[in-house]
Amino acid sequence: MPYQPPVRDHVFLLRDVLQIANYANLPGFQDAAIDVVEQIIEEAGRFTGEVLAPLNAIGDKQGCTWNPDHTVTTPAGFKDAYAKLVEGGWPALGAEPAYGGQGLPHVVNLSFSEMSSSANMAFSMYPGLTHGAYSAILNGGSDAQKDLYLPKLASGQWGGTMNLTEPHCGTDLGLLRTKAVPQADGSYRISGGKIWISGGEHDMAENIVHLVLARIEGAPQGTRGISLFIVPKFIPDAEGKPGQRNSVYCDGLEEKMGIHGNATCVIRHEESTGWLVGTENQGLRLMFVMMNEARIGVGMQGVAQAEAAYQAAASFAKERLQGRSLTGPKNPDGPADPIIVHPDVRRMLMDSRAIIEGGRAFLFWTALHGDLAHAHPDEAVRQRAGDYMALMTPVVKGYLTDKGLDICSDAVQIHGGSGYTEHFPVSQYMRDVRIALIYEGANGVQALDLVGRKLAADGGRAVMSFFAEIDAFVEANGDDEALKPFIAGLAEAKAKLQDATMWLMQNGLMNPDNAGAASTDYMHLFGLTALSYMWALIAKAANAKVAAGDSDPFYSNKLVVGRYFVQRILPEADSHLTKLKTGSELMMALPAEAF
Amino acid sequence: MPYQPPVRDHVFLLRDVLQIANYANLPGFQDAAIDVVEQIIEEAGRFTGEVLAPLNAIGDKQGCTWNPDHTVTTPAGFKDAYAKLVEGGWPALGAEPAYGGQGLPHVVNLSFSEMSSSANMAFSMYPGLTHGAYSAILNGGSDAQKDLYLPKLASGQWGGTMNLTEPHCGTDLGLLRTKAVPQADGSYRISGGKIWISGGEHDMAENIVHLVLARIEGAPQGTRGISLFIVPKFIPDAEGKPGQRNSVYCDGLEEKMGIHGNATCVIRHEESTGWLVGTENQGLRLMFVMMNEARIGVGMQGVAQAEAAYQAAASFAKERLQGRSLTGPKNPDGPADPIIVHPDVRRMLMDSRAIIEGGRAFLFWTALHGDLAHAHPDEAVRQRAGDYMALMTPVVKGYLTDKGLDICSDAVQIHGGSGYTEHFPVSQYMRDVRIALIYEGANGVQALDLVGRKLAADGGRAVMSFFAEIDAFVEANGDDEALKPFIAGLAEAKAKLQDATMWLMQNGLMNPDNAGAASTDYMHLFGLTALSYMWALIAKAANAKVAAGDSDPFYSNKLVVGRYFVQRILPEADSHLTKLKTGSELMMALPAEAF
Repeated sequence: MPYQPPVRDHVFLLRDVLQIANYANLPGFQDAAIDVVEQIIEEAGRFTGEVLAPLNAIGDKQGCTWNPDHTVTTPAGFKDAYAKLVEGGWPALGAEPAYGGQGLPHVVNLSFSEMSSSANMAFSMYPGLTHGAYSAILNGGSDAQKDLYLPKLASGQWGGTMNLTEPHCGTDLGLLRTKAVPQADGSYRISGGKIWISGGEHDMAENIVHLVLARIEGAPQGTRGISLFIVPKFIPDAEGKPGQRNSVYCDGLEEKMGIHGNATCVIRHEESTGWLVGTENQGLRLMFVMMNEARIGVGMQGVAQAEAAYQAAASFAKERLQGRSLTGPKNPDGPADPIIVHPDVRRMLMDSRAIIEGGRAFLFWTALHGDLAHAHPDEAVRQRAGDYMALMTPVVKGYLTDKGLDICSDAVQIHGGSGYTEHFPVSQYMRDVRIALIYEGANGVQALDLVGRKLAADGGRAVMSFFAEIDAFVEANGDDEALKPFIAGLAEAKAKLQDATMWLMQNGLMNPDNAGAASTDYMHLFGLTALSYMWALIAKAANAKVAAGDSDPFYSNKLVVGRYFVQRILPEADSHLTKLKTGSELMMALPAEAF
Repeated sequence: MPYQPPVRDHVFLLRDVLQIANYANLPGFQDAAIDVVEQIIEEAGRFTGEVLAPLNAIGDKQGCTWNPDHTVTTPAGFKDAYAKLVEGGWPALGAEPAYGGQGLPHVVNLSFSEMSSSANMAFSMYPGLTHGAYSAILNGGSDAQKDLYLPKLASGQWGGTMNLTEPHCGTDLGLLRTKAVPQADGSYRISGGKIWISGGEHDMAENIVHLVLARIEGAPQGTRGISLFIVPKFIPDAEGKPGQRNSVYCDGLEEKMGIHGNATCVIRHEESTGWLVGTENQGLRLMFVMMNEARIGVGMQGVAQAEAAYQAAASFAKERLQGRSLTGPKNPDGPADPIIVHPDVRRMLMDSRAIIEGGRAFLFWTALHGDLAHAHPDEAVRQRAGDYMALMTPVVKGYLTDKGLDICSDAVQIHGGSGYTEHFPVSQYMRDVRIALIYEGANGVQALDLVGRKLAADGGRAVMSFFAEIDAFVEANGDDEALKPFIAGLAEAKAKLQDATMWLMQNGLMNPDNAGAASTDYMHLFGLTALSYMWALIAKAANAKVAAGDSDPFYSNKLVVGRYFVQRILPEADSHLTKLKTGSELMMALPAEAF
């Protein structure tokens, strides 16, 4: 069975768990009444399921083709699907009305993005990066730049990219060498080589707008001397139409483990013409606006590939007849039972659901705080929402992609030998999702961002707000008999996270290597705690339905999966806590040459 | 830096940890004095490093080609390397002298196999499966069959395969349909389709001997009606040379995530001529002899790919300059520090070493017991060694391959974006090793074999012997100050495994789904306990050197990595124990249609 967009889960989250109706008076949310949102999500499900999903395997098998004239041909069907995407107005969902966007909340846009990524991750990266370029210009560009570029990027008529990485610098952008020389007319000549530029060249949009990090001649070394430039593939003419070809060229494509349908380009700027975004040497700050949004998007990819892989595995497990149940035949008239009767197969399916459903809630909850941080009238709410966004972004990115890979790998495992062949979709999901642990800041970098920067910001205000919110929830719901296991699990997880946070404060400052050594375990402990909270929220919403007499198993099943999370996933918190408290001594004891 | 065979680690294990000199009076070991073994291992290191490793990437990129005349062309260089393999006498290392083998202990052969698999997993599978076919005929064949086939299989002059899987049956061989019709001359006509036949057709050996499971006409349904047949590609003539072409054909190759250099064949038996091995309907029993040996070999692949991936990652981490150490620059004259200064990179490297070095010891220790089970004069020793082999086989296979994938994935992670491209070797290691979790019985099947069969066999004799051996070791070494952390860790791990075993006995019999639900966590807890024991053995051997004044950091480093295992890996035992005790209730609560 092909990927089925989980429309009902999305609607349940937005309507019943996050209750977006509460924000109906906020800009953006005014046009997002739940019945409208439901229609949008249903339509998104149709579009992604019918147009994008059928191209996923084709994209993987064909990949992109680099041509000697520096053009790139995308896989069969991609160009047509992209035209339909633009025609359907999908890229504009979350963009500003001033630039032709529909101005819907990010959390609604995220619903479309998840489905789009599940259906075809490689394809969905093209509009994903375009939206990143849109955000950078929206955030830092001049009015003229906004007027010229944003409508085209919002609609998807033009594509966008992020030109960061160079062969000798990825994580450490302070080392970058691409050079920008100011010209008399206010433009710059950009020279240098960039690598791993996703969507850096393709045949689906009439123009491609590169957002390029470069160092203006004479600027300081390191990260303080980096500026951001707009370098369009075709320089817009007086009417804003693609004009003269700019001297930015794709010199080749990377061969990769997955996302073959996305062109990962080697890009050469040969005195290409660029325009400064914002002021000089502010490039990294502006790029981080893009990056933070992109990191939430990558966490989303973890959930999205996991969802698609889980669906394929569940479907296979119900169809594949092999062996008999340990407790007696369940399909006595058939030659064997479907493998879903085996507890170890169930374990993998239940693990997947517990993480996917809780993880999606975490993703949507975080995105909703992104909306509140922008739009809420109450400054205190805005501040807390902004704090949460900053604090949770590395957890969303790191934890959800680590788990996304595990789930895709389990989906391969459930398929047995079939899963290892390319006749079934799960090998591709596993290969595709693997990049999500790496790009937009490797997960180890996320973990370090969490413990080294986000925790300590504003005297730990964000994490303390989060603890207080959990305490209040536990206090308010502790007497509800139906929620007991969830509340108990949440309180325990929070206590462990608090313990770990204290340990970090006491040991990380004295010796930063202790913070680094603890970082990944801390990030996972944080993810487990966040998902415990999400499951408590989901359980509360589902239980309200059950208590009101709704006999739809959709709700009672949520309670089962949630309790499974508490019983079977949450115990991992213990080992993360024990590990992180061991510090860095043994980890760092060997000299480098011993490796 | 290309793969460097870990010669010194192998020699240390055999000489100092397992002390094979103690068995010098046993058949096989007589010719395996440690200095001879050392020479063999060094030569194995040269051969695998120089001949096989350079073909690994080529094999991945080119893959095998199926030709319309049903032949298969292996990647460039494979045929030549195979000729060198045979010429060097490598396949014959562990084979019986009666059939041209060198008769060395399996544990010595395993050393070669590991290096061979690290260097080129896809290639090494051809001789690996040939050895499996050799073992099946050795174990069950008639004298005439042995005389005819074994010398050719032992030398590698002929290849061998295992023809088990059919499209509708993999794990559940009771469903198999391939039919064998007895002929007047004592042979059989075999008809049916087989899939996923590794090395089922290739151009490297002058003949291929298929070991085929089929059902003799009129035999019982299910597993009790399956027989094993020899079906040579070319029927040996009167002189034992490849004669008439048999009607067994390769109809195509699978497209796979990895091991592209190994031909995974769709095989058609079109009234092919076969000869029964052993007696009728004993096929599964004979095949399981092959399978058990193969399962140890697959566990070895987990360690082997992990070793190769770790080496690539360590080498990259020492060279790649990016960012600065949290505790101040370590490479102040360079533009940045090598990424090995970052604790989270160290974490992944140290995790890898702790598992690889402990896992290799577990692998060798288990293989040594295989040798003792065959060759030891004392029946009690033979029995215990046989018990251990049976008990540990699923743990070696399941735990070491699960961990092997994690380590290969971490190696990709350490490489960052480079790891996701096919220009670096780690993507291939990760894609190649993924099959090891699946074939020769998926890891979930291993876990079920462990809890459902191996634990209970002979009233739990094997696991009780293991506990007693650990207790004795703890008792004997508990006062050694230098070994304290190892002894404490081991005692704690053993207590948890014993606790889990008791839980299984009390809950698994009442409700077999409880055993199934606990199986994978139990297998991992078992693996952690086994590795704790191995690290205690390694520490004892290394500490003896240190105590005797040997200042070679090789030994002191072992103590650091071993203590890291206890501090940083062993805490996972807690969460496995907690999880497995939750039983199957929630895991099995949802109806199948809810997935």
